[in-house]
Amino acid sequence: MSTCPIDSRAIRPIRFVAGQCHMLDQRLLPAEEVWHTYATYQEIARAISTMVVRGAPAIGVAAAIGAWFGARDIETESSWEFYQEFEKVCAVLVATRPTAVNLSWALERMKHFAQSNLDRSILELKIGLEFEALAITQEDEKANQKLGQHGEPLLADGARVLTHCNAGALATAGYGTALGVIRAAVEAGKKISVIADETRPILQGARLTAWELQKDNIPVTLICDNMAGYLMSLGEVDCVIVGADRIAANGDVANKIGTYTVAVLAKEHNIPFYVAAPVSTIDLSLDAGSQIPIEERDGREITHLKDLQLAPEGISVRNPAFDITPHCLVTAIITEHGIVNGDYLAGLKRIVKQH
Amino acid sequence: MSTCPIDSRAIRPIRFVAGQCHMLDQRLLPAEEVWHTYATYQEIARAISTMVVRGAPAIGVAAAIGAWFGARDIETESSWEFYQEFEKVCAVLVATRPTAVNLSWALERMKHFAQSNLDRSILELKIGLEFEALAITQEDEKANQKLGQHGEPLLADGARVLTHCNAGALATAGYGTALGVIRAAVEAGKKISVIADETRPILQGARLTAWELQKDNIPVTLICDNMAGYLMSLGEVDCVIVGADRIAANGDVANKIGTYTVAVLAKEHNIPFYVAAPVSTIDLSLDAGSQIPIEERDGREITHLKDLQLAPEGISVRNPAFDITPHCLVTAIITEHGIVNGDYLAGLKRIVKQH
Repeated sequence: MSTCPIDSRAIRPIRFVAGQCHMLDQRLLPAEEVWHTYATYQEIARAISTMVVRGAPAIGVAAAIGAWFGARDIETESSWEFYQEFEKVCAVLVATRPTAVNLSWALERMKHFAQSNLDRSILELKIGLEFEALAITQEDEKANQKLGQHGEPLLADGARVLTHCNAGALATAGYGTALGVIRAAVEAGKKISVIADETRPILQGARLTAWELQKDNIPVTLICDNMAGYLMSLGEVDCVIVGADRIAANGDVANKIGTYTVAVLAKEHNIPFYVAAPVSTIDLSLDAGSQIPIEERDGREITHLKDLQLAPEGISVRNPAFDITPHCLVTAIITEHGIVNGDYLAGLKRIVKQH
Repeated sequence: MSTCPIDSRAIRPIRFVAGQCHMLDQRLLPAEEVWHTYATYQEIARAISTMVVRGAPAIGVAAAIGAWFGARDIETESSWEFYQEFEKVCAVLVATRPTAVNLSWALERMKHFAQSNLDRSILELKIGLEFEALAITQEDEKANQKLGQHGEPLLADGARVLTHCNAGALATAGYGTALGVIRAAVEAGKKISVIADETRPILQGARLTAWELQKDNIPVTLICDNMAGYLMSLGEVDCVIVGADRIAANGDVANKIGTYTVAVLAKEHNIPFYVAAPVSTIDLSLDAGSQIPIEERDGREITHLKDLQLAPEGISVRNPAFDITPHCLVTAIITEHGIVNGDYLAGLKRIVKQH
C-alpha cells in the first residue's frame, strides 16, 4: 500500500496499530512515499536487513514489534516452550544487523519482560509483550524530545549545524536524535540552518535528512560528504551533531561511515562535535569502540545506484557501513538523561544507571 | 563515433590527428567507450565546459588544440587582424572553466607563439600553431613520465596508495600525474595497490581511476569518499597521492573537492600526502591558495544521477568543484623537474624558472 493509514503531521516511520506494523519504505524516499504493512516477525527481520527501516533507535523499535509478532504466533500452552520459541524469534531479529546496539537492547528488554512474567498465562504474556513493544516505541520518541531539550542550549541562535547521515525522525520512532536537538532549538525560537552530508553510499542525508527537514521547514543545504572540510575551512560550519549506532563504555562512538572523518575535520577547525543518542545506544559491556562489530555491506551499494552502473565490472570494493569515532574527538554526548562530556567512563555509567 | 580511430594500448583521451581532434567521452565511462570528433574551437570549448574532457593537464591540451582550430579558421591576410581574432578564440576557451591554470597556461603559450611570429605569413603562423598544439600535447605525456620517475622512489614496495578523483592518463595527454607516479613504481617492479575514492559528485574515482587502473592490471579497491578516514584509522593506507588543478606560489594546492579533507586525514594519521603535477599547474602570480577561483557547478550534479532523483525537489545545494589544501598539509610536490618540499616559495620558483 502506498499511503499511511494513520493521519498525523509528525514524521513517524513506524506505526504500530491494531496488530499490524506500517512502515515507510526509506529506500524509496524522496521520490516515493510508500508504506508497507507487516504482520510477521520474518517480514520485520527482512525489512530491517534490507533497510526498509534504518537508524539505530528505529531498528530497535522495529525489532520489538517484530518480537511481539513472533510471540503472538507461538502456539503452545507451555511457558517453558513459549520462552524457547520466543528466544528463537529474537535470535532471528538480532542477526539482521550487527552494529547498532539498540536492536539487541530492545530484544533483551522484550526477553526480560517475558522471563519476568513466565508465571502468567500465555495469553497475558502475549498481551504484556504487545504493551512492552508499544512502550519501547513511545518511550523512544519521548526520549528524543527530552534529549532535544537537553541538547538545544548547545546550539546558538543562528547556528549553522552540519549533520551526517540521518539521525532524524526517520531514524527513530519520531522526532529524531541529532535532528531532535535541531528541532528543539528551532522550537525554542532559534534560527538554525543545517548542512546535510549526502552520506554515500545509501544517501540517507540527501534522501532522508533533506526530506524531513524540508517537510518541517528547517533550512537545509545539501552537500557531498567530501565538501564538509572545505566548508569548515571557509568558516561556514558552527558545530556538528550526529547520531550513534553504539557507544562503548569509554565514549567511543560507532556511527554511519564518514562520521569519523567529520570528527577529525571538526577537531582540525576547533568546531564542537556532538553526538545525540538515547541511553539505549550505550553499551557498557564494551570497553572501547574497537570491540564494536562493523557491518560490511554488499559492494553493489557503491558500484551501482539502482540499475545505473557507476564503476567498472568486477572492481574490488570496501563497504564498511559504520566507523568508530574515538571519544577524544567527541565534545559531548547528549542523552535523554542529560549531557556527558569529559570523563565518559564515569559519566556514561552514571547516566545508564539512572535509566 | 564510438571507436577511437588510432590503435594503441596506451590510454590517451585526446587524439589530435589530420586536423581533427578525437576525444573519449569521459562522462560515459565506464559503461560506454564513446569517441567524439571535433574540428572547431567552439566544439572544443563545449567539450571542456560539459566535461567530455576533464583533468587540469588534459583541458590545457584540449584548449591548445581548440586554439589551433580557431586560428586555422580565421580568414584574413592581416597579421594584426589575425591576432585580434585569435585572442577572441582564446578568450572563449579560457572562460570554459576557472580553476585549473593549465587551461590559461596552454592558451598563453599559444598566444605567445603567435605574437612571436607575427612577422610570418598567415599560412606559416597557422602551421606553426598546429605544431605548437602538438608539442603541448606530446610534452604533457613526457612530463608525466618524468614526473613519475621523480616520484616513484617515494612509494615503497607493497605500498597501499590512496588517491582522490582521477589524476590519471585520462586527466592528461597520457600516463597521468598521480597515477603516473603509481605507474612508474609498478614499472620499477614494485607491488603497489591503490585505494580509489569514488569522488562525488562526478565519480571520477569510480568511473575513471578504477577503469584505467583495471585496464593496466594495477590492483585497485574502490571506496566512498567518506571511508578514507576509517581505512586510515585501521592502518590500511600508506600514503596519499593526488593531482592538482592549480598550485599557488606558496605551495597551496587547488584540487578536486574533497582533497583538503583527505589531506587533513593524512596529517591526523601521519601519512605522507603527495601532490603530483606538471610545472604548467604552478601559478606564481598568486601568492596563496585563497586567491584561486573555485568553480561552483550546477547543484543538479548532486541532486541527480542521470535521470535518477537523489534528493527532494527544490533542495538548496552547494557544489564547489574544488578546494584548497594549504601547503602545510602537503608532504611534497612532485613535478617533471623534481620534487619540492619544505620551502615551497623558493622551491616552486626555482623549478618554474628551470622550465
